[in-house]
Amino acid sequence: MEVHIFEGHPNLAESASHQFLKAGRPADSHYHQLANFNSSDILLHRDLILAADRIVLQFPLYWYQAPALVVDWLNQVLADNFVKRHASQLAGKDFGLVISTGQPLSSYQSGGREAYTVSEMLRPYQMLANRLDFNYLPVFVLAQHSYQSPESQQLNLVAYQSHLSLPRQADFIQRSNWLLDQLPTDLLGEVGDLFMAVCRDRLNELESMQFMIKEGDFNDR
Amino acid sequence: MEVHIFEGHPNLAESASHQFLKAGRPADSHYHQLANFNSSDILLHRDLILAADRIVLQFPLYWYQAPALVVDWLNQVLADNFVKRHASQLAGKDFGLVISTGQPLSSYQSGGREAYTVSEMLRPYQMLANRLDFNYLPVFVLAQHSYQSPESQQLNLVAYQSHLSLPRQADFIQRSNWLLDQLPTDLLGEVGDLFMAVCRDRLNELESMQFMIKEGDFNDR
Repeated sequence: MEVHIFEGHPNLAESASHQFLKAGRPADSHYHQLANFNSSDILLHRDLILAADRIVLQFPLYWYQAPALVVDWLNQVLADNFVKRHASQLAGKDFGLVISTGQPLSSYQSGGREAYTVSEMLRPYQMLANRLDFNYLPVFVLAQHSYQSPESQQLNLVAYQSHLSLPRQADFIQRSNWLLDQLPTDLLGEVGDLFMAVCRDRLNELESMQFMIKEGDFNDR
Repeated sequence: MEVHIFEGHPNLAESASHQFLKAGRPADSHYHQLANFNSSDILLHRDLILAADRIVLQFPLYWYQAPALVVDWLNQVLADNFVKRHASQLAGKDFGLVISTGQPLSSYQSGGREAYTVSEMLRPYQMLANRLDFNYLPVFVLAQHSYQSPESQQLNLVAYQSHLSLPRQADFIQRSNWLLDQLPTDLLGEVGDLFMAVCRDRLNELESMQFMIKEGDFNDR
Protein backbone atom coordinates (compact mmCIF):
# COMPACT_ATOMS: atom_id res chain seq x y z
CA MET A 1 0.00 0.00 0.00
CA GLU A 2 1.38 3.39 -1.10
CA VAL A 3 1.00 5.74 1.89
CA HIS A 4 1.73 9.45 1.49
CA ILE A 5 1.94 11.63 4.59
CA PHE A 6 1.52 15.37 4.10
CA GLU A 7 2.90 17.10 7.19
CA GLY A 8 1.33 20.53 7.79
CA HIS A 9 3.17 21.88 10.84
CA PRO A 10 4.46 25.35 9.90
CA ASN A 11 7.46 25.02 12.19
CA LEU A 12 8.41 21.38 12.51
CA ALA A 13 11.68 22.02 14.35
CA GLU A 14 9.80 23.44 17.34
CA SER A 15 7.20 20.71 17.66
CA ALA A 16 8.05 17.69 19.80
CA SER A 17 4.79 15.99 18.74
CA HIS A 18 5.43 16.33 15.05
CA GLN A 19 9.11 15.40 15.33
CA PHE A 20 7.92 12.27 17.15
CA LEU A 21 5.46 11.49 14.34
CA LYS A 22 8.13 12.13 11.72
CA ALA A 23 10.60 9.79 13.42
CA GLY A 24 7.94 7.15 14.00
CA ARG A 25 6.30 7.00 10.61
CA PRO A 26 6.11 3.58 8.93
CA ALA A 27 9.36 2.86 7.09
CA ASP A 28 7.68 2.32 3.73
CA SER A 29 5.57 5.50 3.85
CA HIS A 30 6.35 8.67 1.88
CA TYR A 31 6.66 11.95 3.73
CA HIS A 32 6.19 15.50 2.43
CA GLN A 33 6.45 18.75 4.38
CA LEU A 34 3.84 21.27 3.31
CA ALA A 35 5.83 24.13 4.86
CA ASN A 36 8.23 23.67 1.93
CA PHE A 37 5.41 23.63 -0.64
CA ASN A 38 5.12 26.36 -3.22
CA SER A 39 3.10 26.74 -6.38
CA SER A 40 5.83 25.14 -8.53
CA ASP A 41 5.10 21.87 -6.67
CA ILE A 42 1.42 21.73 -7.62
CA LEU A 43 1.82 19.23 -10.46
CA LEU A 44 4.21 17.07 -8.44
CA HIS A 45 1.82 16.92 -5.47
CA ARG A 46 -1.10 16.08 -7.75
CA ASP A 47 0.93 13.15 -9.08
CA LEU A 48 1.71 12.04 -5.51
CA ILE A 49 -1.99 12.12 -4.66
CA LEU A 50 -2.91 10.15 -7.78
CA ALA A 51 -0.20 7.57 -6.98
CA ALA A 52 -1.24 7.19 -3.32
CA ASP A 53 -3.52 4.47 -2.01
CA ARG A 54 -3.74 6.32 1.30
CA ILE A 55 -3.39 10.09 1.79
CA VAL A 56 -2.65 11.22 5.34
CA LEU A 57 -2.88 14.88 6.35
CA GLN A 58 -0.96 15.56 9.56
CA PHE A 59 -1.28 18.89 11.39
CA PRO A 60 -1.56 20.67 14.75
CA LEU A 61 -4.81 22.46 15.63
CA TYR A 62 -4.83 26.26 15.60
CA TRP A 63 -8.22 27.52 16.76
CA TYR A 64 -9.81 24.16 15.96
CA GLN A 65 -8.59 24.18 12.39
CA ALA A 66 -5.58 23.21 10.30
CA PRO A 67 -2.86 25.86 9.88
CA ALA A 68 -3.43 28.23 6.96
CA LEU A 69 -0.71 26.56 4.90
CA VAL A 70 -2.68 23.30 4.91
CA VAL A 71 -5.85 25.08 3.76
CA ASP A 72 -3.83 26.86 1.08
CA TRP A 73 -2.25 23.59 -0.10
CA LEU A 74 -5.64 21.88 -0.30
CA ASN A 75 -7.04 24.68 -2.44
CA GLN A 76 -4.07 24.83 -4.77
CA VAL A 77 -3.66 21.10 -5.27
CA LEU A 78 -7.34 20.18 -5.31
CA ALA A 79 -8.36 22.83 -7.83
CA ASP A 80 -11.75 22.26 -9.46
CA ASN A 81 -10.43 21.34 -12.90
CA PHE A 82 -7.97 18.79 -11.47
CA VAL A 83 -10.64 17.18 -9.31
CA LYS A 84 -13.14 16.99 -12.15
CA ARG A 85 -10.65 15.55 -14.63
CA HIS A 86 -9.43 12.87 -12.22
CA ALA A 87 -12.65 12.10 -10.32
CA SER A 88 -12.57 8.38 -11.09
CA GLN A 89 -8.87 8.03 -10.19
CA LEU A 90 -9.36 9.88 -6.89
CA ALA A 91 -12.38 7.81 -5.88
CA GLY A 92 -11.69 4.96 -3.47
CA LYS A 93 -8.44 6.26 -1.99
CA ASP A 94 -8.09 6.17 1.81
CA PHE A 95 -7.97 9.60 3.44
CA GLY A 96 -6.77 9.96 7.03
CA LEU A 97 -6.10 12.81 9.43
CA VAL A 98 -3.45 12.80 12.14
CA ILE A 99 -3.85 15.75 14.47
CA SER A 100 -1.97 16.90 17.54
CA THR A 101 -3.56 18.86 20.35
CA GLY A 102 -2.42 20.35 23.64
CA GLN A 103 -5.78 19.47 25.23
CA PRO A 104 -6.62 16.09 26.72
CA LEU A 105 -8.94 14.05 24.53
CA SER A 106 -11.59 14.22 27.26
CA SER A 107 -12.06 17.96 26.52
CA TYR A 108 -13.64 17.04 23.21
CA GLN A 109 -17.07 15.78 24.26
CA SER A 110 -20.44 17.13 25.35
CA GLY A 111 -19.88 18.73 28.73
CA GLY A 112 -16.13 18.82 28.16
CA ARG A 113 -14.20 22.07 27.84
CA GLU A 114 -14.47 22.15 24.04
CA ALA A 115 -18.07 20.83 24.02
CA TYR A 116 -17.75 19.02 20.66
CA THR A 117 -16.00 15.84 19.60
CA VAL A 118 -12.95 15.67 17.35
CA SER A 119 -15.18 14.03 14.71
CA GLU A 120 -17.53 17.03 14.80
CA MET A 121 -14.70 19.56 14.75
CA LEU A 122 -13.22 17.96 11.64
CA ARG A 123 -16.46 17.67 9.64
CA PRO A 124 -15.08 19.84 6.81
CA TYR A 125 -12.54 17.08 6.09
CA GLN A 126 -15.20 14.38 6.22
CA MET A 127 -17.27 16.45 3.78
CA LEU A 128 -14.24 16.79 1.53
CA ALA A 129 -13.74 13.00 1.65
CA ASN A 130 -17.42 12.43 0.83
CA ARG A 131 -17.22 14.77 -2.10
CA LEU A 132 -14.12 13.12 -3.58
CA ASP A 133 -15.36 9.60 -2.82
CA PHE A 134 -12.39 9.04 -0.52
CA ASN A 135 -12.64 6.46 2.28
CA TYR A 136 -12.48 8.61 5.40
CA LEU A 137 -10.41 6.87 8.10
CA PRO A 138 -10.94 7.30 11.84
CA VAL A 139 -8.94 10.34 12.96
CA PHE A 140 -5.71 9.64 14.85
CA VAL A 141 -5.26 12.13 17.71
CA LEU A 142 -1.95 12.71 19.47
CA ALA A 143 -3.07 14.52 22.63
CA GLN A 144 -0.67 16.19 25.06
CA HIS A 145 2.27 14.20 23.76
CA SER A 146 4.90 16.00 25.80
CA TYR A 147 3.16 15.37 29.13
CA GLN A 148 3.02 11.62 28.64
CA SER A 149 5.19 8.90 30.13
CA PRO A 150 7.69 7.10 27.86
CA GLU A 151 5.44 4.00 28.06
CA SER A 152 2.39 5.94 26.82
CA GLN A 153 4.46 7.50 24.07
CA GLN A 154 5.60 4.03 23.01
CA LEU A 155 1.97 2.86 22.87
CA ASN A 156 1.07 5.93 20.82
CA LEU A 157 3.84 5.09 18.39
CA VAL A 158 2.51 1.57 17.83
CA ALA A 159 -1.03 2.96 17.48
CA TYR A 160 0.20 5.58 14.97
CA GLN A 161 2.11 3.07 12.86
CA SER A 162 -0.73 0.58 12.80
CA HIS A 163 -3.15 3.39 12.00
CA LEU A 164 -1.14 4.31 8.93
CA SER A 165 -0.33 0.77 7.77
CA LEU A 166 -3.35 -1.41 8.52
CA PRO A 167 -6.15 -1.97 6.04
CA ARG A 168 -9.23 0.16 6.68
CA GLN A 169 -11.49 -1.31 9.38
CA ALA A 170 -9.00 -4.10 9.98
CA ASP A 171 -10.29 -7.05 11.98
CA PHE A 172 -8.67 -8.80 14.93
CA ILE A 173 -6.72 -11.25 12.80
CA GLN A 174 -5.30 -8.53 10.55
CA ARG A 175 -4.30 -6.47 13.58
CA SER A 176 -2.67 -9.44 15.28
CA ASN A 177 -0.71 -10.43 12.20
CA TRP A 178 0.44 -6.85 11.78
CA LEU A 179 1.67 -6.77 15.38
CA LEU A 180 3.54 -10.06 14.95
CA ASP A 181 5.20 -8.63 11.83
CA GLN A 182 6.55 -5.78 13.93
CA LEU A 183 8.18 -7.97 16.59
CA PRO A 184 11.99 -8.10 16.39
CA THR A 185 12.28 -11.93 16.29
CA ASP A 186 16.07 -11.94 15.92
CA LEU A 187 16.39 -10.51 19.40
CA LEU A 188 14.27 -13.26 20.96
CA GLY A 189 16.18 -16.22 19.48
CA GLU A 190 14.69 -19.73 19.26
CA VAL A 191 12.09 -19.15 21.97
CA GLY A 192 10.90 -16.18 19.96
CA ASP A 193 10.62 -18.25 16.78
CA LEU A 194 8.58 -20.86 18.64
CA PHE A 195 6.31 -18.21 20.18
CA MET A 196 5.75 -16.60 16.79
CA ALA A 197 4.98 -19.93 15.14
CA VAL A 198 2.38 -20.77 17.81
CA CYS A 199 0.75 -17.33 17.45
CA ARG A 200 0.55 -17.63 13.67
CA ASP A 201 -0.93 -21.17 14.00
CA ARG A 202 -3.60 -19.95 16.38
CA LEU A 203 -4.48 -16.99 14.11
CA ASN A 204 -4.77 -19.37 11.15
CA GLU A 205 -7.05 -21.66 13.17
CA LEU A 206 -9.17 -18.68 14.17
CA GLU A 207 -9.41 -17.56 10.57
CA SER A 208 -10.55 -21.06 9.44
CA MET A 209 -13.16 -21.15 12.19
CA GLN A 210 -14.49 -17.73 11.21
CA PHE A 211 -14.66 -18.88 7.62
CA MET A 212 -16.57 -22.05 8.54
CA ILE A 213 -19.01 -20.09 10.71
CA LYS A 214 -19.71 -17.73 7.81
CA GLU A 215 -20.23 -20.66 5.40
CA GLY A 216 -22.55 -22.28 7.93
CA ASP A 217 -24.57 -19.09 8.19
CA PHE A 218 -24.95 -19.12 4.48
CA ASN A 219 -26.06 -22.79 4.24
CA ASP A 220 -28.64 -22.42 7.02
CA ARG A 221 -30.61 -19.74 5.23
CA MET B 1 -23.91 48.96 18.33
CA GLU B 2 -20.40 48.92 16.86
CA VAL B 3 -20.40 46.29 14.07
CA HIS B 4 -17.13 45.33 12.38
CA ILE B 5 -17.25 43.21 9.23
CA PHE B 6 -14.08 41.37 8.28
CA GLU B 7 -14.38 40.37 4.62
CA GLY B 8 -12.29 37.30 3.74
CA HIS B 9 -12.79 36.86 0.00
CA PRO B 10 -9.32 36.64 -1.58
CA ASN B 11 -10.51 38.22 -4.82
CA LEU B 12 -13.43 40.51 -4.10
CA ALA B 13 -13.55 42.02 -7.58
CA GLU B 14 -14.50 38.66 -9.09
CA SER B 15 -17.22 37.74 -6.61
CA ALA B 16 -20.77 38.93 -7.35
CA SER B 17 -21.94 37.59 -3.96
CA HIS B 18 -19.34 39.47 -1.97
CA GLN B 19 -19.71 42.66 -4.00
CA PHE B 20 -23.43 42.43 -3.22
CA LEU B 21 -22.71 42.03 0.50
CA LYS B 22 -20.24 44.89 0.42
CA ALA B 23 -22.74 47.21 -1.27
CA GLY B 24 -25.55 46.10 1.03
CA ARG B 25 -23.86 46.29 4.40
CA PRO B 26 -25.57 48.41 7.08
CA ALA B 27 -24.56 52.05 6.68
CA ASP B 28 -23.21 52.37 10.21
CA SER B 29 -21.09 49.19 10.09
CA HIS B 30 -17.31 49.15 9.65
CA TYR B 31 -15.80 47.13 6.84
CA HIS B 32 -12.30 45.65 6.54
CA GLN B 33 -10.88 43.54 3.71
CA LEU B 34 -8.65 40.76 4.99
CA ALA B 35 -7.03 40.37 1.55
CA ASN B 36 -5.27 43.68 2.31
CA PHE B 37 -4.17 42.54 5.77
CA ASN B 38 -0.52 42.09 6.58
CA SER B 39 1.38 41.65 9.80
CA SER B 40 1.82 45.40 10.29
CA ASP B 41 -1.97 45.60 10.81
CA ILE B 42 -2.06 43.14 13.72
CA LEU B 43 -2.24 45.80 16.45
CA LEU B 44 -4.81 47.85 14.52
CA HIS B 45 -7.06 44.81 13.99
CA ARG B 46 -6.78 43.85 17.65
CA ASP B 47 -7.99 47.35 18.55
CA LEU B 48 -10.89 46.99 16.10
CA ILE B 49 -11.88 43.71 17.72
CA LEU B 50 -11.67 45.18 21.21
CA ALA B 51 -13.78 48.16 20.10
CA ALA B 52 -16.44 46.01 18.40
CA ASP B 53 -19.71 44.95 19.97
CA ARG B 54 -20.27 42.56 17.09
CA ILE B 55 -17.57 40.88 14.99
CA VAL B 56 -18.70 39.48 11.64
CA LEU B 57 -16.48 37.20 9.58
CA GLN B 58 -17.58 37.06 5.96
CA PHE B 59 -16.12 34.52 3.52
CA PRO B 60 -16.77 32.09 0.66
CA LEU B 61 -16.37 28.36 1.27
CA TYR B 62 -13.38 26.58 -0.25
CA TRP B 63 -13.59 22.86 0.46
CA TYR B 64 -15.98 23.49 3.35
CA GLN B 65 -13.64 25.94 5.07
CA ALA B 66 -12.70 29.60 5.09
CA PRO B 67 -9.97 30.67 2.64
CA ALA B 68 -6.43 30.34 3.99
CA LEU B 69 -6.10 34.10 4.45
CA VAL B 70 -8.96 34.05 6.99
CA VAL B 71 -7.33 31.23 8.94
CA ASP B 72 -4.02 33.08 8.83
CA TRP B 73 -5.64 36.32 10.02
CA LEU B 74 -7.37 34.53 12.91
CA ASN B 75 -4.08 33.02 14.05
CA GLN B 76 -2.12 36.24 13.80
CA VAL B 77 -4.70 38.50 15.43
CA LEU B 78 -5.94 36.05 18.07
CA ALA B 79 -2.49 35.06 19.31
CA ASP B 80 -2.45 33.33 22.70
CA ASN B 81 -0.92 36.21 24.63
CA PHE B 82 -3.42 38.73 23.24
CA VAL B 83 -6.38 36.48 24.02
CA LYS B 84 -5.17 35.78 27.55
CA ARG B 85 -4.45 39.43 28.34
CA HIS B 86 -7.83 40.63 27.07
CA ALA B 87 -10.05 37.68 28.01
CA SER B 88 -12.50 39.78 30.02
CA GLN B 89 -12.76 42.47 27.31
CA LEU B 90 -13.37 39.87 24.60
CA ALA B 91 -16.05 38.05 26.58
CA GLY B 92 -19.63 38.91 25.70
CA LYS B 93 -19.03 40.24 22.19
CA ASP B 94 -21.33 39.00 19.43
CA PHE B 95 -19.62 36.84 16.82
CA GLY B 96 -21.30 36.15 13.49
CA LEU B 97 -20.42 34.35 10.27
CA VAL B 98 -21.67 35.33 6.83
CA ILE B 99 -20.82 32.69 4.25
CA SER B 100 -21.48 32.36 0.56
CA THR B 101 -21.87 29.05 -1.22
CA GLY B 102 -22.51 27.91 -4.76
CA GLN B 103 -24.64 25.02 -3.48
CA PRO B 104 -28.32 25.31 -2.61
CA LEU B 105 -28.94 25.33 1.13
CA SER B 106 -30.86 22.04 0.80
CA SER B 107 -27.54 20.26 0.05
CA TYR B 108 -26.50 20.80 3.65
CA GLN B 109 -28.62 18.25 5.51
CA SER B 110 -28.71 14.54 6.23
CA GLY B 111 -29.41 12.85 2.92
CA GLY B 112 -28.43 15.99 1.01
CA ARG B 113 -25.42 16.13 -1.27
CA GLU B 114 -23.11 17.44 1.47
CA ALA B 115 -24.66 15.24 4.20
CA TYR B 116 -24.01 17.71 7.04
CA THR B 117 -25.61 21.00 8.04
CA VAL B 118 -23.94 24.40 7.80
CA SER B 119 -23.96 24.50 11.62
CA GLU B 120 -22.02 21.23 11.74
CA MET B 121 -19.59 22.30 9.02
CA LEU B 122 -18.75 25.48 10.92
CA ARG B 123 -18.24 23.90 14.36
CA PRO B 124 -14.63 25.15 14.57
CA TYR B 125 -15.99 28.71 14.68
CA GLN B 126 -18.59 27.82 17.29
CA MET B 127 -15.80 26.23 19.35
CA LEU B 128 -13.73 29.40 18.94
CA ALA B 129 -16.69 31.48 20.10
CA ASN B 130 -17.19 29.19 23.11
CA ARG B 131 -13.56 29.47 24.05
CA LEU B 132 -13.51 33.28 23.88
CA ASP B 133 -16.91 33.61 25.54
CA PHE B 134 -18.30 35.25 22.42
CA ASN B 135 -22.05 35.10 21.71
CA TYR B 136 -22.23 32.95 18.61
CA LEU B 137 -24.91 34.26 16.23
CA PRO B 138 -26.90 32.11 13.80
CA VAL B 139 -24.90 31.82 10.58
CA PHE B 140 -26.11 33.89 7.64
CA VAL B 141 -25.81 31.92 4.39
CA LEU B 142 -25.93 33.53 0.94
CA ALA B 143 -26.58 30.50 -1.29
CA GLN B 144 -26.38 30.60 -5.09
CA HIS B 145 -26.73 34.37 -5.14
CA SER B 146 -26.14 34.78 -8.87
CA TYR B 147 -28.89 32.32 -9.84
CA GLN B 148 -31.58 34.14 -7.87
CA SER B 149 -34.30 36.48 -9.07
CA PRO B 150 -33.99 40.21 -8.29
CA GLU B 151 -36.87 39.79 -5.78
CA SER B 152 -35.04 37.00 -3.91
CA GLN B 153 -31.87 39.06 -3.92
CA GLN B 154 -33.78 41.99 -2.45
CA LEU B 155 -35.14 39.74 0.32
CA ASN B 156 -31.62 38.44 0.97
CA LEU B 157 -30.42 42.01 1.32
CA VAL B 158 -33.02 42.82 3.97
CA ALA B 159 -32.24 39.55 5.77
CA TYR B 160 -28.50 40.34 5.66
CA GLN B 161 -28.92 43.87 6.99
CA SER B 162 -31.26 42.82 9.77
CA HIS B 163 -28.92 39.95 10.62
CA LEU B 164 -26.06 42.38 11.13
CA SER B 165 -28.02 45.10 12.89
CA LEU B 166 -30.63 43.44 15.10
CA PRO B 167 -29.99 42.52 18.72
CA ARG B 168 -29.13 38.87 19.25
CA GLN B 169 -32.23 36.64 19.36
CA ALA B 170 -34.42 39.64 18.59
CA ASP B 171 -38.13 39.09 19.18
CA PHE B 172 -41.02 39.92 16.87
CA ILE B 173 -41.42 43.47 18.16
CA GLN B 174 -37.73 44.30 17.76
CA ARG B 175 -37.75 42.87 14.24
CA SER B 176 -40.88 44.80 13.30
CA ASN B 177 -39.57 48.09 14.64
CA TRP B 178 -36.31 47.52 12.79
CA LEU B 179 -38.19 46.96 9.52
CA LEU B 180 -40.27 50.12 10.04
CA ASP B 181 -37.08 52.08 10.61
CA GLN B 182 -35.82 50.96 7.20
CA LEU B 183 -38.91 52.08 5.24
CA PRO B 184 -38.35 55.20 3.14
CA THR B 185 -41.29 57.22 4.53
CA ASP B 186 -40.52 60.34 2.50
CA LEU B 187 -41.38 58.47 -0.65
CA LEU B 188 -44.79 57.39 0.66
CA GLY B 189 -46.02 60.85 1.68
CA GLU B 190 -48.91 61.36 4.15
CA VAL B 191 -50.38 57.92 3.61
CA GLY B 192 -47.01 56.49 4.53
CA ASP B 193 -46.85 58.57 7.72
CA LEU B 194 -50.32 57.36 8.73
CA PHE B 195 -49.42 53.71 7.96
CA MET B 196 -46.25 54.00 10.02
CA ALA B 197 -48.05 55.60 12.96
CA VAL B 198 -50.63 52.81 13.00
CA CYS B 199 -47.93 50.13 12.87
CA ARG B 200 -45.99 51.72 15.72
CA ASP B 201 -49.19 52.00 17.80
CA ARG B 202 -49.99 48.34 17.28
CA LEU B 203 -46.45 47.27 18.18
CA ASN B 204 -46.66 49.36 21.37
CA GLU B 205 -49.97 47.73 22.25
CA LEU B 206 -48.49 44.30 21.62
CA GLU B 207 -45.52 45.11 23.81
CA SER B 208 -47.81 46.24 26.69
CA MET B 209 -49.86 43.08 26.36
CA GLN B 210 -46.76 40.89 26.43
CA PHE B 211 -45.57 42.72 29.51
CA MET B 212 -48.90 42.24 31.30
CA ILE B 213 -48.98 38.54 30.41
CA LYS B 214 -45.49 38.11 31.83
CA GLU B 215 -46.44 39.93 35.05
CA GLY B 216 -49.57 37.71 35.29
CA ASP B 217 -47.45 34.60 34.92
CA PHE B 218 -45.31 35.76 37.74
CA ASN B 219 -48.23 36.55 40.11
CA ASP B 220 -49.92 33.21 39.48
CA ARG B 221 -47.00 31.15 40.70
